[in-house]
Amino acid sequence: MKFFINNPKHIIQEAIQVSLLQNPLRKIKSEEINVVLRSDWKKKKVALISGGGSGHEPAHIGFVGKGMLTAAVCGDVFASPSVDAVLAAIIATTGEAGCLLIIKNYTGDRLNFGLAAEQAKALGYQVETVIVGDDIALGTLGQRRGLAGTVLVHKIAGYYAEKGKSLAEIKKIVEKALSNLFTIGLSLTSCQKFDTEHLERLAEDQVELGLGIHGEPGVMTIPYAKAETLIQEAVSLLKPYLLENTSYALLLNNLGTVTSLELSVVLHELLKEDNLKKQVSHLMGPHAFMTALNMKGISITLIKLSKQIKKALKAPVAINQWQGIQKIQEASYLKAPKLPLIIQSTPTNHPQHAALVADISALLISLEKELNKIDELVGDGDAGTTFATIGRQLESYKEQLPYADVQALLATVGRITARDAGGSSGVLLSILFTKAAEAYEGDTSLGTALQAGLQQMMAYGGAQEGARTMIDALSPAFKALAESKSLSEVAAAARKGAENTKNITKTTSGRSSYLNEDTLRNVVDPGAEIIARIFENIAERSAQ
Amino acid sequence: MKFFINNPKHIIQEAIQVSLLQNPLRKIKSEEINVVLRSDWKKKKVALISGGGSGHEPAHIGFVGKGMLTAAVCGDVFASPSVDAVLAAIIATTGEAGCLLIIKNYTGDRLNFGLAAEQAKALGYQVETVIVGDDIALGTLGQRRGLAGTVLVHKIAGYYAEKGKSLAEIKKIVEKALSNLFTIGLSLTSCQKFDTEHLERLAEDQVELGLGIHGEPGVMTIPYAKAETLIQEAVSLLKPYLLENTSYALLLNNLGTVTSLELSVVLHELLKEDNLKKQVSHLMGPHAFMTALNMKGISITLIKLSKQIKKALKAPVAINQWQGIQKIQEASYLKAPKLPLIIQSTPTNHPQHAALVADISALLISLEKELNKIDELVGDGDAGTTFATIGRQLESYKEQLPYADVQALLATVGRITARDAGGSSGVLLSILFTKAAEAYEGDTSLGTALQAGLQQMMAYGGAQEGARTMIDALSPAFKALAESKSLSEVAAAARKGAENTKNITKTTSGRSSYLNEDTLRNVVDPGAEIIARIFENIAERSAQ
Repeated sequence: MKFFINNPKHIIQEAIQVSLLQNPLRKIKSEEINVVLRSDWKKKKVALISGGGSGHEPAHIGFVGKGMLTAAVCGDVFASPSVDAVLAAIIATTGEAGCLLIIKNYTGDRLNFGLAAEQAKALGYQVETVIVGDDIALGTLGQRRGLAGTVLVHKIAGYYAEKGKSLAEIKKIVEKALSNLFTIGLSLTSCQKFDTEHLERLAEDQVELGLGIHGEPGVMTIPYAKAETLIQEAVSLLKPYLLENTSYALLLNNLGTVTSLELSVVLHELLKEDNLKKQVSHLMGPHAFMTALNMKGISITLIKLSKQIKKALKAPVAINQWQGIQKIQEASYLKAPKLPLIIQSTPTNHPQHAALVADISALLISLEKELNKIDELVGDGDAGTTFATIGRQLESYKEQLPYADVQALLATVGRITARDAGGSSGVLLSILFTKAAEAYEGDTSLGTALQAGLQQMMAYGGAQEGARTMIDALSPAFKALAESKSLSEVAAAARKGAENTKNITKTTSGRSSYLNEDTLRNVVDPGAEIIARIFENIAERSAQ
Repeated sequence: MKFFINNPKHIIQEAIQVSLLQNPLRKIKSEEINVVLRSDWKKKKVALISGGGSGHEPAHIGFVGKGMLTAAVCGDVFASPSVDAVLAAIIATTGEAGCLLIIKNYTGDRLNFGLAAEQAKALGYQVETVIVGDDIALGTLGQRRGLAGTVLVHKIAGYYAEKGKSLAEIKKIVEKALSNLFTIGLSLTSCQKFDTEHLERLAEDQVELGLGIHGEPGVMTIPYAKAETLIQEAVSLLKPYLLENTSYALLLNNLGTVTSLELSVVLHELLKEDNLKKQVSHLMGPHAFMTALNMKGISITLIKLSKQIKKALKAPVAINQWQGIQKIQEASYLKAPKLPLIIQSTPTNHPQHAALVADISALLISLEKELNKIDELVGDGDAGTTFATIGRQLESYKEQLPYADVQALLATVGRITARDAGGSSGVLLSILFTKAAEAYEGDTSLGTALQAGLQQMMAYGGAQEGARTMIDALSPAFKALAESKSLSEVAAAARKGAENTKNITKTTSGRSSYLNEDTLRNVVDPGAEIIARIFENIAERSAQ
């Protein structure tokens, strides 16, 4: 497996280094000890320290700041920090108000933070600890692991510490919160440390439920199924812990590499009537709060929203990784605006214009197979069908067109070619006709108006003359038209342009830009060909 | 490949639905058209509309809000939205001040947004467009794709629109910004649509440089190497675009599934002296601004920081996915606090205590092999070594101990067992001795103090009596000691507790909780065994 890393041994130091460049944080100067603390900290209030092994970013450094943690102690990837590191964090941050260690329930963390707490107490510091075990996957309370719910403890304790509450008060608030904090993990893959061989425990048809944040096995392996089924299973484990008629906040955590769209699908499922809709009033995330390296999984955390907790969670903090808590609102909709009708004016008579449109429609339809054949050589073989579709659409509107009003006719053709055009050719022609209609005012000739339309089509389409597109025929034809040349001269100009595409074997834009020279040599561009045929048809017709 | 999805056809609708529950957004009511707009929008200022195919979340819905976009138009995954959708967005948001369409430079988007703009103009709306092509991978300006730099356009235009600037002014500002906006992508994998077979274009030794956000090929494939090398290559493509003595802001974008630690490593490399340190004064991210589904890649965007641009980027907005811009500061360090010395008092004489410590040290060292052998049956085979290490540490401090002062002696032993203990046993014993020292005051007997220490060790360690640990010997021994029983009775109690571990074959905590019953039957727990041996040794010694 590929990673963006240098030496895995230096990854934590490198990560801390860049966090210091961007955030109001300081690090304790040491090679062995990785402790990061608020740079504005004055030891006036209760200090809040958390941490543990790395690999769970943004936890915990990402939550250090005013209103959340005072300091984070970082071990190596998935390895608890040393007792000395925790002790250094306590000494560096703790004043007379004391400090609270927020410890995720893993043996290593419990022991190292615990011993540091005892050592600090022996030095005369006031230290309390809370063990976070929000994982409901493993039965008894004592065994519950600390998962993403830990971040909520940071926020709750952070709020009350900032408010100046005492150490004892904060500990009491946190312990109350912990008794109503439940998390379950659900993952499609395990996770991988940077310096080990890739070992995927889960088969392509397996999903793990109730797993921890180090890739340790879950409470059960279930069959891979659609999100609806997976989320139902996870919710069924959470539900027994919920009190009736009680309001909860839901935190949806990305354990690593779940895409934003998938997280939305998960949230959509979670909030369904049969799942958690009735119980959940507020949301946090989806966001990566507490990750497990590259695990493709999520965790779902629920916390009971007492007034005390709600107040703490709602208080804004200037910490990027805390994205606030949102009250779930009714989805709000705006009535769809009326889109312009294709036919906006009453039909008018003009036999010549009507015959012209009918002829072009018939020509486009008749050339379908021939053009597709050419396109098979130099494109995806559907150029004929695209133009034939436009022909059929024109045909279908033939009784409703404002033939006598050229400007309205151009605009209407513009709207017709846009609708259900299939390929980009319809949209391109629509841009051309829409702009030409706009330009066809007052003294402007039809040729000049069509040139303006072509300019606009080129601006949006990105192709220029010489790129083997219909522009190669349109441009000389419109130029001749604008110069009031005869229709046969206009047709000759279009034909010359179309023939010329046979010699264009290298292009940087347009549909042929990905083909090689041999493929293109001596084959006419089908778009240019049909334009030439149209003008030839018009010229022939007027000559009769 | 596994995903958290239901029907891929509904994924965009589901994602939009949940975004409406959490954010001040509204959707145009329609099954076919996915347009999301600010719910506070009053058509008083210039409307800013962006969008395109989905699969790039949080772009673009994530950037709709006051100070950024007015509306986002969402196509299906990697498919441009329809002309009707864009037109609906224009009609729904545009008042007299007009609107600006911010279009990423892809043919489909250019055409559909372009035609919608033309149609809206035909309806009398004031509409302007800007095409974002920040990708430097493909040579000429016209071909540059729109990448993560688009989000900066949202922010810049958003700021000036909110300030009440005119459509023409905003377009001018944006076009100026675009002339100094450069992005390059770098990816270890291509990306995968939810409804297609997994096709990985890149081999395990390949990395793609200059790729787009739909998995389309990059400008070149380079060999997989450490981050240092990869970033150097990417930077070498960016550098020719940078002006000398000019200050740039860097946006580091997660294209999908790069872990937080890796992003930090990438940023660390980018800011090295030989790379971009001199040119970059401000940072945005690392963050997922504009993703390509699950692509494991990054993109690097640089924008020249004129006063006009800086002001716009720095203005705070209440949009979670915009995480602000940070001025790069010097990393700040705190002097490491002095940690307590292991030896804190002058040595004192007490021949009996000295002999006791010497005996126990010798015993621990002598039992190394025997205990390891037992541990090989029921653990990881290092219990003997862990205790022997503690023995050797005690031995090494033997000349410096405060033998005459029991409290100081307990505290010192606590500090010795903590240091370089290797396993958790050292930390556990350290907690025990540290707490016992604290408890050993005034009338408290040694037995009672040790019991208090044991309680604390159990609290942090999580194991109780009966879990096949050294607690099974420690607890009865300390109890006997607290009850002032004779040393031989204490030793007998410890031995009984140790022997009893042979019958404990099912535990829910402690080191043996993962082993099966047959493995454990009739084998003594090595921790309990050594405790029994110690007390037997003490009793024997005192009997002599």
